[in-house]
Amino acid sequence: MRAVDLIQKKKTGLKHTKEEIDFLINGYMNGVVDDYQISAWLMAVCFNDLDIEETAWLTEAYINSGEILDFSDISNNIADKHSTGGVGDKVTLVLIPLLASCGLHCAKLSGRGLGYTGGTIDKLESIKNFNCQISNDKFKKQIKEIGAGISAQTPNLTPADGKTYALRDVTATVDNKSLICASVVSKKIASGADHIVLDVKYGSGAFVKTKEDAYELASLMIKIGHQLKRNIRAVITSMEQPLGKFIGNALEVYESIEFLKGNWEDDLYEVTMKIASLLLENSGIVKNEDEALKLLNSKIQSGEALDKFKQIIQHQEGDVNVIDDYSILNISESKTNIISDKTGYITNLDALSIAKACKIVGAGRDKKTDPIDFGVGIELKSKIGDFVNKGDTLAILYATKNIEDAVEIAKNAYTINEYKSEIEPLIYKTI
Amino acid sequence: MRAVDLIQKKKTGLKHTKEEIDFLINGYMNGVVDDYQISAWLMAVCFNDLDIEETAWLTEAYINSGEILDFSDISNNIADKHSTGGVGDKVTLVLIPLLASCGLHCAKLSGRGLGYTGGTIDKLESIKNFNCQISNDKFKKQIKEIGAGISAQTPNLTPADGKTYALRDVTATVDNKSLICASVVSKKIASGADHIVLDVKYGSGAFVKTKEDAYELASLMIKIGHQLKRNIRAVITSMEQPLGKFIGNALEVYESIEFLKGNWEDDLYEVTMKIASLLLENSGIVKNEDEALKLLNSKIQSGEALDKFKQIIQHQEGDVNVIDDYSILNISESKTNIISDKTGYITNLDALSIAKACKIVGAGRDKKTDPIDFGVGIELKSKIGDFVNKGDTLAILYATKNIEDAVEIAKNAYTINEYKSEIEPLIYKTI
Repeated sequence: MRAVDLIQKKKTGLKHTKEEIDFLINGYMNGVVDDYQISAWLMAVCFNDLDIEETAWLTEAYINSGEILDFSDISNNIADKHSTGGVGDKVTLVLIPLLASCGLHCAKLSGRGLGYTGGTIDKLESIKNFNCQISNDKFKKQIKEIGAGISAQTPNLTPADGKTYALRDVTATVDNKSLICASVVSKKIASGADHIVLDVKYGSGAFVKTKEDAYELASLMIKIGHQLKRNIRAVITSMEQPLGKFIGNALEVYESIEFLKGNWEDDLYEVTMKIASLLLENSGIVKNEDEALKLLNSKIQSGEALDKFKQIIQHQEGDVNVIDDYSILNISESKTNIISDKTGYITNLDALSIAKACKIVGAGRDKKTDPIDFGVGIELKSKIGDFVNKGDTLAILYATKNIEDAVEIAKNAYTINEYKSEIEPLIYKTI
Repeated sequence: MRAVDLIQKKKTGLKHTKEEIDFLINGYMNGVVDDYQISAWLMAVCFNDLDIEETAWLTEAYINSGEILDFSDISNNIADKHSTGGVGDKVTLVLIPLLASCGLHCAKLSGRGLGYTGGTIDKLESIKNFNCQISNDKFKKQIKEIGAGISAQTPNLTPADGKTYALRDVTATVDNKSLICASVVSKKIASGADHIVLDVKYGSGAFVKTKEDAYELASLMIKIGHQLKRNIRAVITSMEQPLGKFIGNALEVYESIEFLKGNWEDDLYEVTMKIASLLLENSGIVKNEDEALKLLNSKIQSGEALDKFKQIIQHQEGDVNVIDDYSILNISESKTNIISDKTGYITNLDALSIAKACKIVGAGRDKKTDPIDFGVGIELKSKIGDFVNKGDTLAILYATKNIEDAVEIAKNAYTINEYKSEIEPLIYKTI
């Protein structure tokens, strides 16, 4: 087999065999196939696509390229979720302790953020001393003891996806659904999850722009999950405006703790509860969504969910005082109000622009090695549908650098009109 | 500017600016843009193409990446030809001395062969001591003194094309017309030619399979030539069966010398004279094709064309005795007759199969560093349209290894039928 012939095959629109996919991916890992060949192949895939079987084979090739976690000695009810990424998306921080407090084991492996804002791991690391680099043994021990843990993916997990993703990122081959699907599903399966809910986001702040595309992607991921005998469900949610009230690493930890104390924003609550309910139902802990919501709310009211978060922080060496003392989060004390120069209804709040504003003040990174400023970000005082007067504060910028530019970008993220526009439902579909 | 954005742009089907093409090609040369980015971009080009302007910019970027030869102090009538490659194509060997004997300066830079059979340089190197690695100064001096020279392209000429071509070769991105065009035309222009004739071949033995595709490619190259203010013409010729009677490096030199002595195969004569006529007309040495043919034939009859070839060999340190003593060519003495097992008319003689048979006995190479056996090859005793009896010799294999396989392949190249089929004209079009 020669890589050039396989590239030609996909370029011509023909279907690969499982052996061919294995040859490409294993060859890429062991140096038989070069990166410039894989990138040409990836581009051909962007044009001619992989079908369901090819996508499943690619997913398997990714899974088999590294270690596969196995929690079956602890539970056959290991839950996991994945978000395709959005602005202000701190669902994981709330969901994991919440589910664990309901008795569902959650072994969550997350990534760092690339692009505009930090990822889950970045957010958690804004808690002093929080350790996301846990060994597998220690991670399993934690899951066994407290039912939950959030750790950074090790490079040993689906390394072929890691290597391919790095290449896709710099060769404009990220946006193919089959490639996205194989990347996401392989990680979830290699992480040892039995029940998986995917939060596929669409809109300005997501990399999928339309709900139709998000639905197509979600459907594909579910099909691939079934091919690989995993119970996968998906919610398709809007990312036209940021989720919740805060964007920025420490700020999102703050909002998550507040959520677990019972103080939540409605949109964040809606998405979190929907995902939590699906996982509780699928794992058999509850019979239906009503039961799920009752159980979840009781765990917030009783403080058990918050306590579970505390346990996670404690087990992962973080400073648990953060639960009561937010000063530990070192949120920037330099704040700038972003003032409305119009009176009217907010008809749009562009998530991508808000993310860009956060990025230029230091909340995100371009390269894995770039530092992040955990304490910066934006607090949204008004969101779509709200009425504001000229002179009102739309949002607050927490930042010490690039303030003027960030204020300008964030202000322009708001569209203010005379009449209220219809608001899209946050959850488009559950499948 | 970022390479990833430019790849995305071409992937989306948008048109590049000149600056963007320059950024990609210059970036590739100086390490700012990686090979895996160029290969992804090349694949996107294969799907979304470059338009005339983009192709011209790419051609210019290739030209400007290295040195540009200038013969204007010698003549403003420098002729060059290029063949897109075919089996048994020794036109250059005959054409250059022939044109020079008519007073047209020919500074021909050629490549080595990759694939089934050797290139012009390989063929010439089958002449003992023939030196194709001449310095520019020496080359110019030779052109001034005797009006003709054939040298190997130096890596300093269109190095960006060289680097890109090596990448295309292993990433299944060779067959895009714009990329082929930029590669061919840039080399011709950087070689300093004023008048260029392209021999675009189609058929089994060419990399362009249909005459329509060959016409399209030729038209594009002519357009790009005009954009870059060069006088380019093209002939589109059939490569269904090999050109002439011999295939193999030394064997083709033998056939070329015989041609210049007045002993030619009709097909080789037809193509060579057509190209020669076009160049003589374009340079103003003759007024029309009739005049050209008269002049060309007179130069063969007078022995001046043969003498010019002798001068070239002498100037390039080769053994001029080869003209009269073919034993110097070291043609393999081990010959095997390929016998017809049918009686009838030859209706097909697959050029690609003949090339493959030559390849496996050592006439071609896969890598630039592979050695070539100059003395091996095939002599065609019968070609399309000929009548053969069972037991007749179809061809003679000159080889010492892989004889059985090569005979089998070469024999199967022949299709013999009861009735004669119509023969396609050798020259499809001149544009």
